[in-house]
Amino acid sequence: MFWQEKRKTKLKKELVMYKIVLLRHGESTWNKENLFTGWTDVDLSEKGIVEAHNAGKRLKEEGFVFEETWTSVLKRAIRTLWIVLDEMDLMYIPVHHDWRLNERHYGALQGLNKAETAAKYGEEQVLLWRRSYDTPPPPLEKSDPRYPGFDPRYANLREDQLPLCESLKDTVKRTMPFWNEIIMPRLAAGRKMIVSAHGNSLRAIVKSLSKISDADIVGLNIPTGIPLIYEFDDNLQPVKNYYLADKAELESAQQAVANQGKAKT
Amino acid sequence: MFWQEKRKTKLKKELVMYKIVLLRHGESTWNKENLFTGWTDVDLSEKGIVEAHNAGKRLKEEGFVFEETWTSVLKRAIRTLWIVLDEMDLMYIPVHHDWRLNERHYGALQGLNKAETAAKYGEEQVLLWRRSYDTPPPPLEKSDPRYPGFDPRYANLREDQLPLCESLKDTVKRTMPFWNEIIMPRLAAGRKMIVSAHGNSLRAIVKSLSKISDADIVGLNIPTGIPLIYEFDDNLQPVKNYYLADKAELESAQQAVANQGKAKT
Repeated sequence: MFWQEKRKTKLKKELVMYKIVLLRHGESTWNKENLFTGWTDVDLSEKGIVEAHNAGKRLKEEGFVFEETWTSVLKRAIRTLWIVLDEMDLMYIPVHHDWRLNERHYGALQGLNKAETAAKYGEEQVLLWRRSYDTPPPPLEKSDPRYPGFDPRYANLREDQLPLCESLKDTVKRTMPFWNEIIMPRLAAGRKMIVSAHGNSLRAIVKSLSKISDADIVGLNIPTGIPLIYEFDDNLQPVKNYYLADKAELESAQQAVANQGKAKT
Repeated sequence: MFWQEKRKTKLKKELVMYKIVLLRHGESTWNKENLFTGWTDVDLSEKGIVEAHNAGKRLKEEGFVFEETWTSVLKRAIRTLWIVLDEMDLMYIPVHHDWRLNERHYGALQGLNKAETAAKYGEEQVLLWRRSYDTPPPPLEKSDPRYPGFDPRYANLREDQLPLCESLKDTVKRTMPFWNEIIMPRLAAGRKMIVSAHGNSLRAIVKSLSKISDADIVGLNIPTGIPLIYEFDDNLQPVKNYYLADKAELESAQQAVANQGKAKT
């Protein structure tokens, strides 16, 4: 009978002991204006807010429940998480912040228009800065007002932890210790978690979980606002991952992200 | 010179080492409809949202900065805090939840209209339930859907911690161990904190800090949405407390709260 089938599916679903949800924040006001953002603390755009609501509704419909949450110290990821928790009626669960989930630091490019930068340096150079694994963008001066040492939220970090710019490789180097030391032990303890973060900190995590090469990770576009679920076996090896979205939706979201670096005509 | 005076005042302000901000959440949808709320997880009304924004703006204008925050597991207090943090541009600081900051549990009265209850039981009985120190309202049955044992947010509590109803005395009994074990040591460590909570959990705290008698505490009305600041000396004895509001504003807010129990004509 139909309801028995449904019940069986539900039980099977619940039997997956180890599972985590990754979520890239929705569109920000600077995504919209096509500026390099990095650690700049810009807010979600109207569209980004809608994306976050949709992610929360979808997670609720699919029966997800969380016990704790992790996010960066940047408000576009925090607000995305708040909206998801609000939609899921889970505002009372812990929200933990860690700077190591921050977006890749874009150095002296932060605040510059991507299209103008592409017109000036060439689309190829911009694509290299955005999509090369180990080429960092031009660094900030320590006297630059954009230097993280001036921001109280980083007051507890050592100077060598404060980036002047980051390649994706640098982002991986600070995100993965957080993942391995904080998240994995909690996953092993069976905690049900969602991580709300950024394009490049999530790339670092996905690179490790799905064993993606340095060369291939730069071509991987994680769409905004679409929950990415990873399931693990009893040895905490990832066995399955999927987006909570239908195929067309997913492709259009990935294309939108891939187009961001191109000069506007 | 003027700027020197200003600087001196600022320095004097900063010299107060031990300080905490208490905030009662803004109007909820059930406050508005005049229903007994207690542990029911109702949201802020439009007016309550405006009150929270005003509290956040005022705290920011007055130069307050927080390092961590505490709130209940009820969304009207959590949302109040979120709005304050958003206004203060402090979304990245830790938000801790503790059920012991919850509103007093109103037992079987939860969900009933205050005016109707007053018409049925008499205004005096309702005033007794609302304003007596040790008379609890009628208890819930454990089979009642309102029983906290059915709510996942209380899944980690022992059965004897789950109230069927509470007098203000009962609320004091569970709020003060939280205050003394969690908040006071952090205050002693110089942490700058805000506590977003409820009329009766805040009464419990104010009763202890300001040494108010059982008889007098029932007459004390803490206004919604107005930050209440407590300052302490080096021995962590409270030396001063004040609301961030002008006198007229404060009196009107206190009157509004005092009027809540009266039958509507």
